[in-house]
Amino acid sequence: MDASAQPSHAPPARPSPAPGTPAAARYRAVRARTEALCAPLGPEDMVVQSMPDASPAKWHLAHTTWFFETFLLGPREPGFEPFHPKYGFLFNSYYDTVGPRHARAKRGLLTRPPLPEVRAYRRQVDDRVLALLERGLDPEGAAVLEVGLHHEQQHQELLLTDIKHAFSENPLRPAYAPPLAPSRRSAPRLAWVEHEGGLCELGHGGGGFAFDNEGPRHRAWLEPFALASRAVTCGEYLGFLEDGGYRRPGLWLSDGFAAAARAGWEAPLYWERDGAGWSVFTLHGPRPLDPAEPVVHLSYYEADAYARWAGARLPTEAEWEVVARGAAEDGALADGGRYHPAAAGEQRPAQLLGDVWEWTASAYAAYPGYRPAPGALGEYNGKFMVNQLVLRGGSCATPAGHVRPTYRNFFYPEARWQFSGLRLCREARRC
Amino acid sequence: MDASAQPSHAPPARPSPAPGTPAAARYRAVRARTEALCAPLGPEDMVVQSMPDASPAKWHLAHTTWFFETFLLGPREPGFEPFHPKYGFLFNSYYDTVGPRHARAKRGLLTRPPLPEVRAYRRQVDDRVLALLERGLDPEGAAVLEVGLHHEQQHQELLLTDIKHAFSENPLRPAYAPPLAPSRRSAPRLAWVEHEGGLCELGHGGGGFAFDNEGPRHRAWLEPFALASRAVTCGEYLGFLEDGGYRRPGLWLSDGFAAAARAGWEAPLYWERDGAGWSVFTLHGPRPLDPAEPVVHLSYYEADAYARWAGARLPTEAEWEVVARGAAEDGALADGGRYHPAAAGEQRPAQLLGDVWEWTASAYAAYPGYRPAPGALGEYNGKFMVNQLVLRGGSCATPAGHVRPTYRNFFYPEARWQFSGLRLCREARRC
Amino acid sequence: MDASAQPSHAPPARPSPAPGTPAAARYRAVRARTEALCAPLGPEDMVVQSMPDASPAKWHLAHTTWFFETFLLGPREPGFEPFHPKYGFLFNSYYDTVGPRHARAKRGLLTRPPLPEVRAYRRQVDDRVLALLERGLDPEGAAVLEVGLHHEQQHQELLLTDIKHAFSENPLRPAYAPPLAPSRRSAPRLAWVEHEGGLCELGHGGGGFAFDNEGPRHRAWLEPFALASRAVTCGEYLGFLEDGGYRRPGLWLSDGFAAAARAGWEAPLYWERDGAGWSVFTLHGPRPLDPAEPVVHLSYYEADAYARWAGARLPTEAEWEVVARGAAEDGALADGGRYHPAAAGEQRPAQLLGDVWEWTASAYAAYPGYRPAPGALGEYNGKFMVNQLVLRGGSCATPAGHVRPTYRNFFYPEARWQFSGLRLCREARRC
Amino acid sequence: MDASAQPSHAPPARPSPAPGTPAAARYRAVRARTEALCAPLGPEDMVVQSMPDASPAKWHLAHTTWFFETFLLGPREPGFEPFHPKYGFLFNSYYDTVGPRHARAKRGLLTRPPLPEVRAYRRQVDDRVLALLERGLDPEGAAVLEVGLHHEQQHQELLLTDIKHAFSENPLRPAYAPPLAPSRRSAPRLAWVEHEGGLCELGHGGGGFAFDNEGPRHRAWLEPFALASRAVTCGEYLGFLEDGGYRRPGLWLSDGFAAAARAGWEAPLYWERDGAGWSVFTLHGPRPLDPAEPVVHLSYYEADAYARWAGARLPTEAEWEVVARGAAEDGALADGGRYHPAAAGEQRPAQLLGDVWEWTASAYAAYPGYRPAPGALGEYNGKFMVNQLVLRGGSCATPAGHVRPTYRNFFYPEARWQFSGLRLCREARRC
Repeated sequence: MDASAQPSHAPPARPSPAPGTPAAARYRAVRARTEALCAPLGPEDMVVQSMPDASPAKWHLAHTTWFFETFLLGPREPGFEPFHPKYGFLFNSYYDTVGPRHARAKRGLLTRPPLPEVRAYRRQVDDRVLALLERGLDPEGAAVLEVGLHHEQQHQELLLTDIKHAFSENPLRPAYAPPLAPSRRSAPRLAWVEHEGGLCELGHGGGGFAFDNEGPRHRAWLEPFALASRAVTCGEYLGFLEDGGYRRPGLWLSDGFAAAARAGWEAPLYWERDGAGWSVFTLHGPRPLDPAEPVVHLSYYEADAYARWAGARLPTEAEWEVVARGAAEDGALADGGRYHPAAAGEQRPAQLLGDVWEWTASAYAAYPGYRPAPGALGEYNGKFMVNQLVLRGGSCATPAGHVRPTYRNFFYPEARWQFSGLRLCREARRC
Repeated sequence: MDASAQPSHAPPARPSPAPGTPAAARYRAVRARTEALCAPLGPEDMVVQSMPDASPAKWHLAHTTWFFETFLLGPREPGFEPFHPKYGFLFNSYYDTVGPRHARAKRGLLTRPPLPEVRAYRRQVDDRVLALLERGLDPEGAAVLEVGLHHEQQHQELLLTDIKHAFSENPLRPAYAPPLAPSRRSAPRLAWVEHEGGLCELGHGGGGFAFDNEGPRHRAWLEPFALASRAVTCGEYLGFLEDGGYRRPGLWLSDGFAAAARAGWEAPLYWERDGAGWSVFTLHGPRPLDPAEPVVHLSYYEADAYARWAGARLPTEAEWEVVARGAAEDGALADGGRYHPAAAGEQRPAQLLGDVWEWTASAYAAYPGYRPAPGALGEYNGKFMVNQLVLRGGSCATPAGHVRPTYRNFFYPEARWQFSGLRLCREARRC
Repeated sequence: MDASAQPSHAPPARPSPAPGTPAAARYRAVRARTEALCAPLGPEDMVVQSMPDASPAKWHLAHTTWFFETFLLGPREPGFEPFHPKYGFLFNSYYDTVGPRHARAKRGLLTRPPLPEVRAYRRQVDDRVLALLERGLDPEGAAVLEVGLHHEQQHQELLLTDIKHAFSENPLRPAYAPPLAPSRRSAPRLAWVEHEGGLCELGHGGGGFAFDNEGPRHRAWLEPFALASRAVTCGEYLGFLEDGGYRRPGLWLSDGFAAAARAGWEAPLYWERDGAGWSVFTLHGPRPLDPAEPVVHLSYYEADAYARWAGARLPTEAEWEVVARGAAEDGALADGGRYHPAAAGEQRPAQLLGDVWEWTASAYAAYPGYRPAPGALGEYNGKFMVNQLVLRGGSCATPAGHVRPTYRNFFYPEARWQFSGLRLCREARRC
Repeated sequence: MDASAQPSHAPPARPSPAPGTPAAARYRAVRARTEALCAPLGPEDMVVQSMPDASPAKWHLAHTTWFFETFLLGPREPGFEPFHPKYGFLFNSYYDTVGPRHARAKRGLLTRPPLPEVRAYRRQVDDRVLALLERGLDPEGAAVLEVGLHHEQQHQELLLTDIKHAFSENPLRPAYAPPLAPSRRSAPRLAWVEHEGGLCELGHGGGGFAFDNEGPRHRAWLEPFALASRAVTCGEYLGFLEDGGYRRPGLWLSDGFAAAARAGWEAPLYWERDGAGWSVFTLHGPRPLDPAEPVVHLSYYEADAYARWAGARLPTEAEWEVVARGAAEDGALADGGRYHPAAAGEQRPAQLLGDVWEWTASAYAAYPGYRPAPGALGEYNGKFMVNQLVLRGGSCATPAGHVRPTYRNFFYPEARWQFSGLRLCREARRC
């Protein structure tokens, strides 16, 4: 047994705070969960950056802290002084309004500040935020606090996907969490959930937190369609692969086939073939491919090609949302200690929230009437509205309570390191 | 006077064939126009490829011929034999269904076949096509003929944009066409054309030719909006530039600012500054910047940033189309011997068809219910439906009769060598 | 028979001028030979640049003319005016002293000036040079004339290697010259020419033209060694290849194995394998591999790996030179109309001059006491004295009379498009 | 005062073992010194790789251990078992004979094995080596032990240069060692040490350890020359810089000027200019530029350009060696706790051993009669004998006792992260 590849500390199985919890308690809970997610990691694990898209765990710890310090404390603390004069440069992610910043691709070179100092940074900012909360927050401050909490939850998910990628680059194949027992469940038969279309309301309509890109609430016209009752499984995807799916340009978007050829893709990210068949690298270590589980770590191009092969298509985000609006939260989220999607249950539709992010056919764009917030927080979402595709539904790495039917995630079509899968859609059979 | 930089032959000023012309006459006219466009070019001009996006003029001559040979003659000529066994490899652009092909980036190395042989290829295929037309075409053949003719018109436009790019790379700054007289017109004041929105019909509804991506006809819900009465002018764009537009990240999409920095963009493509101010390289040679003319050779990123600076936005393609449906064809098209956009006239709206392609905010995607044609021609449009943005309206390089209100052009957001400009849009003022 | 792939005009078989010929006659002969080399090429062939290392034939025509215009006429013609104000920018290769220049990698975009204008440029400069010669040249001018003639001969060789590379990129596989009859000769048995070493004199010692890098004459100490009697043959090299030579890192320099892997080398450049075995693309078109001919189009890395496999090594340039000093000029040079190396004859040693350039183990560096000439011509050789390896002996593409035993050619170790082969060397057996 | 940028533990000031010390004691001393060098580093510092040329400190710890395990223990321990089955893959640097290996550029992703496990690896291998030494070593084993010790000393120097580079990438500018007091010494006047040349003996002739590339001892003929009495200083180099040295192509090798332009070099690596003038980043943190100290962190190209500007040249390695043969070891070496070169003293010549590695004009190549050792250790030096230049003399990062007059270091001409400087040479004035 190879000690160096095993987790020495259990990852967290602590619940995300329920809505309605007082702000200070929610703040404490979210902040504590981020640190709990680092429990299985050593200082070396937390400093590396395995590709420019990913960030070191230590950087996630510091950046989320910088967010509260800069946007919440900065304008509200009398005589505000930052914890360290250079942290703004080091831990600003992309806010041009705030000032210059360290190069994204060099985050992995920040061996200093060392981890204990970043932890001290967190503690100090936490104390100051809690003191501010105690004094009471103005409405705008309350809104910034909410954004900051949901922002930190987003980084909790990234922390997991980023460390998974870093570990996958290590020939020792380290595990983040204890091994998963093999599943006994088989996937339920694929069924189709029909929707009659028409003039639909979309987007977040108020009531609870939402990011600015989820609104404004607006109308869209949909033709009748049918959405698959569950996500595509590994077993189904294997059929595509064994049918030569990766070698048949006619199944692919032109850019997709070129991207696959350039990168040498022959299977989803983290799939590995040896004499004994396919196995999959997970946060729980390598394990045999389970045909019942949703396929995950697909690029948009692979999701799109699979759908074409299956005689279907990807849903638009509007189609997805009108079905998901009332759906049960039945998929795996990150709070149960399982960091890998699980086979669907018997609900119809199943897995709309949780398990895997689902690529949609919709390019990430502004909703009609969308205006980014003024100031730096207006950079949060709006400036990324080109070249990316919308994913919906959350994944097994998403904190419980973070995702909702109007939630719009977005990535470039070649991204594969997120827990991204797909669900089929098709025109409704009209009789 | 530098002889080497001057055109030795006049470019064509021949009209495109009117609709209703018999097929053989239209075929002859379209084919002849392609060759006429090459009149100002020498054999050396016609072999080079100045970047992978562009193709040599000789390649355009051969590829459009291969299109008719392969898709029209191939299935219909008894005992069909291709003109040359390797031309399929050399002149197939991207049809995987048909077979393997030469690398796109190496088209400029095809010094052989020499130009006279490519001209012989054209003549032979023309004779065979005309013989086929004389015998009468089956309906599918008639449809392929139409696609072939519109396909060749698309390459006529590319031939112009590609040679413009090639000439721009030559320090001698050659001209394709005789110098243009300075314009005396000033641009009309910008006005706003309001539209009440609602449930609109979009896409091509039959009646005349359309590409498959223009359909099917479908419904979409629009909120009220106002579209600018004309395209953005060089003078207006200069205001953006002089206001530091290229140095202010807050005006740009994140990918756009990065692309501009990487490429060192400080002005539209073909703008040049010297002591005497701005000049613009055109197919008629360099000339002083005319503030009344539409700005052209913008990337999507620049168009988007300009719109944000101007307190407006780009229209969606649906918004553009519902306004353009009944618009006059008042903009410059390529048949008048002017290969540069002209200042708008007094119509409202003006320039919707002609002058400059207008970037829209819409990612290029399938319309609801879209199905590509079966077989190789299904590759014509559908496989490019990702990562590109829709442009509408045609340009001064588009053959007359080629463009229409439902026509969807599409390019990557960083593309600048097409005649691409923009028109502003905004939410309607609600009172 | 594919007309487009065949040469329409015979390439030149005219002799290079003999030493002692008057300057004007030699000037005329060298200049005429360059143009004769272009006879088999069309204008399209002459404009392309198939890689940054190569230059278009038209560019060679113009650059060699610019050399005489700038360095010979410029300082000597009263009221000198260049033929064209921008040609200095276009056709300066690398002389920083003279002024700025066009980007090397963009030489292939110079469709203008068209070929007839470049020919007019040649004629005008020829007239002016001949008028100058008639008036008589100062000694420095006479020296510049000599450099210019040898410079043009170097470009004659490059013109051939560059068009060979361009044609090799064309799937039609055009031929520059008529097919070669198959050789009947087999290679003579490899023998070893021993040399006792000691304190040797090296470098050019006066008497006839030499480039500055061939001097000064100097002493070097050599240990006894033995040089192979002829170049390595294709048949011998095939042995290396079939023994897994390209897959065994232990035979290679580390940089060499990495370069081969990166580029996917599995055989010399221009070797192609199909069902019928190996064939070789030549300036005479494709032909079956002839085991008796010298292997050619090797990188330094391949030459070095072959030598190691053969239990020998490459000679240093000093070792090569002391043996070559009295050698016969028995190898093929470019004046016989054969542009491909031929099997060695029975001389011992054979092929030292002609057939293939021979990689030596010597990095290209200054001889002791070397000083580049003052002014622009000092840039001719000296500034390239790093990162390149010396080749000796001339090739089948070298004009007769151009090469000599002290001649130092130099290329980067990964270069393969020159007619580069090798000859083995080893320590002398001491008894 | 910024704690995160300060060293928390003193680096070692322990002497390297004197020659003649028993093997076990020398082994212990060398091994202990490597670990002592890591004392100022945290686990995060030790895992990063700031560029492919550099390696993580942890990797150096493991690789040097793997060297003893594989080459010393492997063939000699009965029933040898490696410490870990995958460490051979992870910590083999470049020995193809031994087996496949991890990608060099991904060494920084090895967060596992964690540092404590690598330390356990070191301890276990140390115990086994010492047990082997106690039993007595065969002569070949004794030779491998020596190579292993000198190999580890080489990595001690690399560990310092690599962490310096990593720290330089951190905007916090961490220091490895305590600040240096400003020097009061000014540089001695430059004098010239003349040598009469002639037939000289070069290379290692036996007596003490040497790497295989230092032999065989051989003869070379040298012309009279004069070598500078000390290294070039920062003050002198500043003269070159202020004279426009970086902008004048005539001073540079062609490849050098291109490399400088591509990389944007305007000064040596680690020089920084602000309002207060030049400062230099050192292992002791940033400090003002001291004109008396040797200039360091130059590429070969910069060294060569400086020499040309100064009207001199770089010495060949032969010239350097014949002068250095009897030189005093007066330069700073790494055992005194100063990791930065110091101003020369009054010896003539000074600084030949220590302070800065000195670029020579000699390409790294085999000496006459050189044969690499059989087996894997033959890969140590020989396969790198192309594309690199020889440096001589050791530096302030070299362990005392490691360098000698015949020692040949070698790097690519663009490498700047080693402690590389230069010493001038010129032809002897003959009267």
